[in-house]
Parts: sequence; structure tokens; C-alpha cells
Amino acid sequence: MKIKRSERLIDMTHYLSEHPRELVSLTFFAERYASAKSSISEDLVIVKETFENRGIGTLQTVPGAAGGVRFIPGVRKDQAEEALSVLSEQVSRSDRLLPGGYLFMTDILGDIHLMNHVGKLFAGAFANEQIDLVMTVATKGIGIAHAAARYLGVPVVVARRDSKVTEGSTVSINYVSGSSKRIQTMVLSKRSVKQGARVLIVDDFMKAGGTAAGMKNLLEEFSATVAGVGIFIESEQEAGEERLVEDYISLLKLRSVDEKGKTIQIETGNYFDRVSSFLKQ
Amino acid sequence: MKIKRSERLIDMTHYLSEHPRELVSLTFFAERYASAKSSISEDLVIVKETFENRGIGTLQTVPGAAGGVRFIPGVRKDQAEEALSVLSEQVSRSDRLLPGGYLFMTDILGDIHLMNHVGKLFAGAFANEQIDLVMTVATKGIGIAHAAARYLGVPVVVARRDSKVTEGSTVSINYVSGSSKRIQTMVLSKRSVKQGARVLIVDDFMKAGGTAAGMKNLLEEFSATVAGVGIFIESEQEAGEERLVEDYISLLKLRSVDEKGKTIQIETGNYFDRVSSFLKQ
Repeated sequence: MKIKRSERLIDMTHYLSEHPRELVSLTFFAERYASAKSSISEDLVIVKETFENRGIGTLQTVPGAAGGVRFIPGVRKDQAEEALSVLSEQVSRSDRLLPGGYLFMTDILGDIHLMNHVGKLFAGAFANEQIDLVMTVATKGIGIAHAAARYLGVPVVVARRDSKVTEGSTVSINYVSGSSKRIQTMVLSKRSVKQGARVLIVDDFMKAGGTAAGMKNLLEEFSATVAGVGIFIESEQEAGEERLVEDYISLLKLRSVDEKGKTIQIETGNYFDRVSSFLKQ
Repeated sequence: MKIKRSERLIDMTHYLSEHPRELVSLTFFAERYASAKSSISEDLVIVKETFENRGIGTLQTVPGAAGGVRFIPGVRKDQAEEALSVLSEQVSRSDRLLPGGYLFMTDILGDIHLMNHVGKLFAGAFANEQIDLVMTVATKGIGIAHAAARYLGVPVVVARRDSKVTEGSTVSINYVSGSSKRIQTMVLSKRSVKQGARVLIVDDFMKAGGTAAGMKNLLEEFSATVAGVGIFIESEQEAGEERLVEDYISLLKLRSVDEKGKTIQIETGNYFDRVSSFLKQ
């Protein structure tokens, strides 16, 4: 039975959203909807236009027999600004202030709507990069990693602080946490990263960058390439302090914390300095 | 400018998919598309029909002034069978066998497509339950928790083995791991669960059920209610062994592991015994 255009558009939208950056052939859709390829092509033009108009992303067309279409999630600049302002407002709420000037972030990292924003922002920032994997270190970055990976259509690998029997053989490195100067260990299962893989490193927080640098070193052991580093919140650099990682994209920047006055000053990170390609407005 | 039906259908599908179980008013869509509510109602009939036909879920209509529409993700029985067979095939691959009869599962837990299946299966199983939160314990269940939470439209909370300064005040319990009989600790930030919250507990693996029982006990300290327990893989019960948690839904069951013969026997868990409502075929 031939499927109506409206049904095709709805199902295509859903299918493509769940399979970002995956090459889907016209034949696949033609068979799925028992429709002519010419109709499918027309549908895809409509989907592409709407995805772009609505700031969902774009469709890349790959011509030829092995060709098809690929949904690349993206954001418009105004959407990115809006998302960053939502995130910034959440992070700067004064009730997150913990003794010692720490911030309580667990609720944000577990909020799937906020994580969707974060995932989309990272996917948009790295839309033109080839990325095979998203990597983070346990525990707090895992939600961010899954969100980014979902919009990038790639798997997540998680480095751990300790080795567990269920990880099989592992590669372990020692690194110096930049801010506390303590020696820490990071362990990654040998099977989890293939040689030559292009990896996006993400984490929830970066101060001196020791953990991110540790992940970079660990990836070197796998002969993998760092395709990018995405940080949710970076802290203001202290005078004379050197960042161990220079090339990163941060969504937010923690400018200052006033424990007595109970205020948290948050501003946008380097996102708009580093990211130049957005969906058209 | 009035928006065409095709564009409305595409954007609605995307919007609803990203906001599962959230009540969206007709006015919201009417303003978003500068269209009459009567047109929006017609659109929603088409979306509902397609979501049901395609096994994406259904739309619940809430009548009245404060009403609107709610997207409830779901699965058809044949899709659940298909998803479970994909998962089962992945888990039973003989190269996952580690010394000691352990299974390497890290790649599966980081595979967002497989996690989408898992999330959808749990969301379908608990589609008719009121759920406010998904809870798991660090580290391996976190990907599953985020996947389930995404389809249920609720936040994730993660209990930890140790207390960290960034968690603020915490509640901690000791519990006996059912299989190893060791005493373990589980810690949850005080702010993360509200009194009376209805919580879905998920985990990657269950043997005697000590960890799941620990999470249940921990939730009692918060006066929260366990709305359900979802387990990715349960292991075969040994003779005379008692399960510490009886009321759970498992996707898969690990029947046996033959280290010498390098085989892993996996079958479907109790999913179809416990879950009775599916989308119509």
C-alpha cells in the first residue's frame, strides 16, 4: 500500500532524528513507504527546508548509486544564544552554592532537557568534523557525553578512575590534576577505542585542564586522534595559571563565586569565538 | 505568515519527540505556526495515526481549557521482540567473554542506538505509570538511565559509591551486595529526590538484587516511592538463591556462560510476562 505524503514526512522526520549523521539511501525510504524515489526526493526537499527553517539541522545529499541523505543536527546562532542563556541562568542560581565555593550541578547534569541543549550545542559546534566517538571520564560527564553522542550518532566511551574486572584489559595512565596537583589515575578499556579513531572529549568542568589533558594522553596510547574538546563550564583562569589544554570549546565560564554574598557569576564561554558555522536565520 | 501543513507536521513531530509525556497546549502550536486551532487539531490527528502506525507511540488528548496533547512513546510487540533479539544477539557474542566468566558490556552500554532500544523498551513498559525520576547507581547504569529518562521526559539521579564535596549534603546507606555478600555503601545527594517522588530504578545487571534493593532502601530515606525496577540483564537464579527484589522488569536473561566452550546463552527476560500493553499492530 502506498503511504501518504503526510505520513511519510512524519515518519521520515522521526527516523532521521533518531539516526543523525547516518547515510540513509533513497531506496530505504522508497521501500519503507512503497513509494517512488521521485516522491521521496520531493519529501526530502520539504524536510530539509523545514529542518533549516526551524533550526533543527540540515540534510546533506550524497549523490550516486551509493548515495542518500544524511541528517546533520545543527543550531541557529539565536538558538545557541537562547540555550546558553537558559543554561547560564540555571547554573547561576544562588542555591547551588556549597560550602567551600563548590557548585551543586548534579540536577543540571541529570536534566534531560538541559542535556539536550548541551548535546545540540556540541553537535552543532562539531557538525563539520568527522567524529567517531565521544569520550569522557566517570562520573559527572557521562550525561553530557550521551547527549552529545546522541546528536552526533556515535558511541560513548567512559574512562574510569579505577580498573574493574568487567572492563577486560585496560590501558591506564597517571596524570596530574591541574588544580589540586595530585596524581590521579585514569583507566580505559583496551577494546573501547580503535586505532585512528577521531574522538570528541567532553567534560562537565575544566579548571587547569588536567583531566582533559589526561584524556588526551590516554587517547595517544590508543593512537587515536582528538577531534575536539567540549567543556560545559570552564572556570576563570587565575593569574599566572597555565591551561594544560588550549584548544577547547566551552559553553559557559564561571567568572567568580562569592560565598558570603551568595552569588555566582556565569558568562558565556568561548563558544561564539570558536564556532563559526551556524544554521542560517 | 501562515505555515504550510507539511512544515507543521515535520516540526510537530520533532517537537513532540523531544518533549515526551509533556502536556503541550493547542495554543502553543497555534501560535508557533500562526495557524488556526482547528488546523492544529487536524494535524494532530494525522501525527497520532502515524505515530501509532509506525510504532513510535501515541498522542493523549487532554480536553478543556488547560488541556492539550501529550506524546507517549511506546512500542509494538513485534518491535519489542525485534529490539530484544538485536540486543540479545549483541550480548551473546562470544568475544565478550572475559576471564572469570564476566561479560564485557561497555561497548553496548555506550552504543546510543542500542541504548535507544533499551530506553524505548523501558518507556513502553512504564508508559501507563506516573514517573517523576529515573535513578541508577554509578557507573555502568548511567547510559541506560539517560536513555530511559529521555523517552520518559524526566530527570536522572545517580547514586554513588562514595560521597563527593560537589554533591552537597547526602544520605548514605550500607547494603549487602547479594552475590558477593560484601557490605557496600551507596550515597545520594539530599537535594536530588523530592519527598513523594515516583522513581523508576534502572540498572545494567542484576544477580541477587542487592544493589536494586539498596536503591529501594535509599529511596525510603527520601520518602519516595518506587514506581518500577527495570533491569537490562538479569542472571539466572541459582538453586536456593533468593531474589532480594521480586517486582522488576528485565529485558534479557543470562542463562549460562561457558568459559571453555566460549559461549554465552542469553534469552529474553521477563519483559513479555510483565508488560501487557503495547501499541496495536
